[in-house]
Amino acid sequence: MPNVVAYTPTPDSYVWTFGGAAPVATIAPGTVVELFTEDCFAGKIQSEDDLVSVVCEFPFLNPQTGPFYVEGAEVGDTIAVHFISIEPARDWAVSTTVPLFGALTSTHLTASLHDPLPELVWIWELDRQARTCRFSAKHSDFTTTLPMDPMHGTVGVAPANLEVRSALVPDAHGGNLDTPEMREGVTCYLGVNVEGALFSLGDGHARQGEGETCGVAVECAMNTVVVIDLIKGVTTPWPRLESDTHILSTGSARPLEDAFRIAQLDMVNWVAEELGLSHMDAYQFVSQAVQSPLANVCDTNYTSIAKIEKRHLPQLPFRNGTHDKLKALAASYRNGR
Amino acid sequence: MPNVVAYTPTPDSYVWTFGGAAPVATIAPGTVVELFTEDCFAGKIQSEDDLVSVVCEFPFLNPQTGPFYVEGAEVGDTIAVHFISIEPARDWAVSTTVPLFGALTSTHLTASLHDPLPELVWIWELDRQARTCRFSAKHSDFTTTLPMDPMHGTVGVAPANLEVRSALVPDAHGGNLDTPEMREGVTCYLGVNVEGALFSLGDGHARQGEGETCGVAVECAMNTVVVIDLIKGVTTPWPRLESDTHILSTGSARPLEDAFRIAQLDMVNWVAEELGLSHMDAYQFVSQAVQSPLANVCDTNYTSIAKIEKRHLPQLPFRNGTHDKLKALAASYRNGR
Amino acid sequence: MPNVVAYTPTPDSYVWTFGGAAPVATIAPGTVVELFTEDCFAGKIQSEDDLVSVVCEFPFLNPQTGPFYVEGAEVGDTIAVHFISIEPARDWAVSTTVPLFGALTSTHLTASLHDPLPELVWIWELDRQARTCRFSAKHSDFTTTLPMDPMHGTVGVAPANLEVRSALVPDAHGGNLDTPEMREGVTCYLGVNVEGALFSLGDGHARQGEGETCGVAVECAMNTVVVIDLIKGVTTPWPRLESDTHILSTGSARPLEDAFRIAQLDMVNWVAEELGLSHMDAYQFVSQAVQSPLANVCDTNYTSIAKIEKRHLPQLPFRNGTHDKLKALAASYRNGR
Amino acid sequence: MPNVVAYTPTPDSYVWTFGGAAPVATIAPGTVVELFTEDCFAGKIQSEDDLVSVVCEFPFLNPQTGPFYVEGAEVGDTIAVHFISIEPARDWAVSTTVPLFGALTSTHLTASLHDPLPELVWIWELDRQARTCRFSAKHSDFTTTLPMDPMHGTVGVAPANLEVRSALVPDAHGGNLDTPEMREGVTCYLGVNVEGALFSLGDGHARQGEGETCGVAVECAMNTVVVIDLIKGVTTPWPRLESDTHILSTGSARPLEDAFRIAQLDMVNWVAEELGLSHMDAYQFVSQAVQSPLANVCDTNYTSIAKIEKRHLPQLPFRNGTHDKLKALAASYRNGR
Repeated sequence: MPNVVAYTPTPDSYVWTFGGAAPVATIAPGTVVELFTEDCFAGKIQSEDDLVSVVCEFPFLNPQTGPFYVEGAEVGDTIAVHFISIEPARDWAVSTTVPLFGALTSTHLTASLHDPLPELVWIWELDRQARTCRFSAKHSDFTTTLPMDPMHGTVGVAPANLEVRSALVPDAHGGNLDTPEMREGVTCYLGVNVEGALFSLGDGHARQGEGETCGVAVECAMNTVVVIDLIKGVTTPWPRLESDTHILSTGSARPLEDAFRIAQLDMVNWVAEELGLSHMDAYQFVSQAVQSPLANVCDTNYTSIAKIEKRHLPQLPFRNGTHDKLKALAASYRNGR
Repeated sequence: MPNVVAYTPTPDSYVWTFGGAAPVATIAPGTVVELFTEDCFAGKIQSEDDLVSVVCEFPFLNPQTGPFYVEGAEVGDTIAVHFISIEPARDWAVSTTVPLFGALTSTHLTASLHDPLPELVWIWELDRQARTCRFSAKHSDFTTTLPMDPMHGTVGVAPANLEVRSALVPDAHGGNLDTPEMREGVTCYLGVNVEGALFSLGDGHARQGEGETCGVAVECAMNTVVVIDLIKGVTTPWPRLESDTHILSTGSARPLEDAFRIAQLDMVNWVAEELGLSHMDAYQFVSQAVQSPLANVCDTNYTSIAKIEKRHLPQLPFRNGTHDKLKALAASYRNGR
Repeated sequence: MPNVVAYTPTPDSYVWTFGGAAPVATIAPGTVVELFTEDCFAGKIQSEDDLVSVVCEFPFLNPQTGPFYVEGAEVGDTIAVHFISIEPARDWAVSTTVPLFGALTSTHLTASLHDPLPELVWIWELDRQARTCRFSAKHSDFTTTLPMDPMHGTVGVAPANLEVRSALVPDAHGGNLDTPEMREGVTCYLGVNVEGALFSLGDGHARQGEGETCGVAVECAMNTVVVIDLIKGVTTPWPRLESDTHILSTGSARPLEDAFRIAQLDMVNWVAEELGLSHMDAYQFVSQAVQSPLANVCDTNYTSIAKIEKRHLPQLPFRNGTHDKLKALAASYRNGR
Repeated sequence: MPNVVAYTPTPDSYVWTFGGAAPVATIAPGTVVELFTEDCFAGKIQSEDDLVSVVCEFPFLNPQTGPFYVEGAEVGDTIAVHFISIEPARDWAVSTTVPLFGALTSTHLTASLHDPLPELVWIWELDRQARTCRFSAKHSDFTTTLPMDPMHGTVGVAPANLEVRSALVPDAHGGNLDTPEMREGVTCYLGVNVEGALFSLGDGHARQGEGETCGVAVECAMNTVVVIDLIKGVTTPWPRLESDTHILSTGSARPLEDAFRIAQLDMVNWVAEELGLSHMDAYQFVSQAVQSPLANVCDTNYTSIAKIEKRHLPQLPFRNGTHDKLKALAASYRNGR
């Protein structure tokens, strides 16, 4: 049974940035952390009448739980965060439109003379037994369900270059990647930029479409369990993920083709290194094998995913077998409860 | 048994553009067409020593089979092309790098001072029984297989605005979309811009990764059977696809976020129209339901896909039931052979 | 006195594309052509009540005068077009907004859920003696004048790759570059893609801001005189310009940074070649010397300009002295009138 | 004679970020500050043998002088910084290429499989009497001069949203805008995001081309004199500049068209507000009047400038006459020396 730490932040201990906040706990590698994350609205939207522009106070959006200081983590190392479980903490979730935010609207960056689109709130019913999210239209009586697929939109460490970044930003340090791939059973690898890594997470989604088109997912508070490991002397330039079936690279940038390029190049480098291929051979192989779902096309940076099925790769353990090691710890934790 | 037309182009009857070529046949709606398409290199690369820059003659790349004049097709209508089968015509396929072409290299548009990457040719072995494509590395003895998943990279009609476009270009008329979704069992909807539509296709791929990262797929000649229908008085601003399980919109533009925006807006409009939702409700629903795989991030325009599972939508026939109608014709054709 | 040809198109002889139209005349190198170009609305907007979406018929926008077949022009050559004079043909000009067109609005490519901005028409008074354009606000009594600075938005030849492009498109063949630099006294160099080059021009602007932000300039019919030359065996990959004081490269692409890259790389190559510099030295020199005004950020491709003062360059004649030769022909023509 | 403060940082008091550093001095509005800024390499490159990748230590690039706490500055105010003089502190300056940085090379964001371009250093001779910068080619004996036009690449305040940004980043808080317009005689307006504004500056350039194509300008230490003012209750969403002849808006974002949109929309809003025009009238007027030179197309965000000649605008004082007020203080300071 691994060591277990429980942590539930109080509202005054939320953090709103990666970097720039003192750690809330020190975690030894191999530790399981049971934690709670509030939704991206800091829980302030509770009905269809609670508009973001009214009830939320910028920049206090997207509260993060953490940061956790990982013992022994130094610049040039990698931390691995394995998601043992991600469970909605309530039986409802919320989505909205936000003025001048989203992919199909003018924004502060894709600036125009248009007035903002209407600001609306949708409350989604979560059926945690049936694992569904119920959508009800606002302007008709249409209703339907989508599968629940809980995930964390925001997972990251303190950034490099002496920076402190808003929790709304995805970049090389992780942060607001908003990829549905960040789900239970997945290991997330993050390069360490400062001593202790300073890992935080938040922004739970009961589910999310690829691209997060309207800028907001099915947002909900989460009870989440992770197990954290440290890989000494291994760098990770951009966040990587590993599931039982896939390895995944991420790239976050604008324009979107630059996010694509980063993720694909990272995958080519990863495959070249693990399989001992030349870069041109890896480029060819990845080009034919890769899946390329989008993560977000609405945030400060856009995020693109490169994803390859492990069954198409020789049966190597990747990243020194960390994913399997953390799965074993997760099983031990589950058995021990 | 539907009417069946067979057409195999001779090398001097390939066409290299959408628009600007006289039709090779007139097709009544409901007709099955059995056809052959040469690979994107016009069959000129037959070994690892045949470099594109040596054996191919620009602009004679990506030969198309057609165009077919669809009886009764007028501006403002839609043609539907259902892929009954797409079968590699040979037991090998070819991929290459092409100087200054691809996503992880400088190009003529993303211009730089770098010398081109090495120009290489990979020959892939196709096992048409096992349905696999074998990759062999050039710089090591690594070899593995990927599933065969035949598709057409290029499917389109004559463009609007009096234009003639190279077969290398994807845009609102279709063309070089390079999406792996264009496979057997799928119906492709294309808006008609000129009388007769002037439908052509080519660029068979034994398989392709999403994004076509190196710029080239597992290229091979195809024996393909399609059945073509005409939907009068229905417009299709950007190419749409429908399978038994999904509806899909495409957008082709640069930067990549514009391709994303086009595809997502088309899906919002499609869902709003078919389900009778307001645009804001459809925006919300699509945002949570959509899958967003990339098609190509290497061509003149980049292509992004928006894709929704039919099971999440009420059981309406979409686009007047055309997909089911064409599936029935396909079954009748198969039974009649 | 050079040979002089006069050509005024009738409305039924306007052309709407580059490529795809038969030449209206054959021109020997060294010939002066006196011609008329109608405005981009084909003259259909004559008052503030004439909306583009009502009085114009797509795709019959941006009528071109030509094409002219240049004797002896072959693929791989360059034609040089020197603007002897560009004079507004009327004492008024027109600008508009066009639904879903322009830089500060959603468009068909930068697609969104916004309704189009208001569609408006402004009539500008031209004072051809004072060389001013008078702006009168529509929603207040504000009025002011801007300097007249006549130019052609659209100048080009038939494109490569077997294509026919709408006259609304800027690309490597020239076309709708929409740069204010295309004014009297300037020589424009265009690479020849088809026999005879098939040069056309149109889209006169009494003046235009850099970027053509609202998508439309101060549009007017022009009486224009050019002298055309042919440079054998010299290629021009992207349109270049030369004035008495500057050399200029153009790049047209999306995203805008790709247009920038193309123009800057072309300038680096040009300077390296003419001054005998290494590419790295030319890169350094151009980086510190270049001016980079935008041309258009609204058309199918965006256009960026790279511009260097001749006084910073050794006193070489560029491009074989063509600009000076054409200036001498222009002087001879003026004297001979 | 205004109050004058002199400040020369020691190497251990350079700051490398906007935000996140304690103020070095408190400045009352109306104060003249005489200061020194080291070059972007922290003075470590002193010969052609000093490569950035060898002698510089990331992230300790682009040292800033400051921050200065402006008395009375609160969120929602604007500070105005008028450049009384910017003088090179040495008779030489340096430019370089930096691996994977610049506009005509692959970068960490526009990622590719290319090896970096060669890393080179050019030493430029400055003639402070003749006001010239001498370029000497590295690979030939070519040499020429360009006019000296001293400027600061980096001018900004602490950012909003609780962030701390690297001094290499341009954004709404200013920072590394890298526009040649930031020269002597210009007033720069910056919105205040935190109490005291926390103004810093650095990154002197003896001159710079528009776009900073190779990523580096003619970098040199500067002796600079500014006078700082505070405009209470006036917001400035993006940095604005004002000279005797022009008003200028800036936008910093990727892709470059978004930077363009921001700057142009800010100019439309500015003109609409100051002239009392409707937004559509201002859109039309700006579209025909604006100059749009690029600032940088190499940094974390790209920066675009929108610029209008004051002579085309009625003779209003802009921004409450702040520019004239600061010019008067500058004259008083000069007279008082």
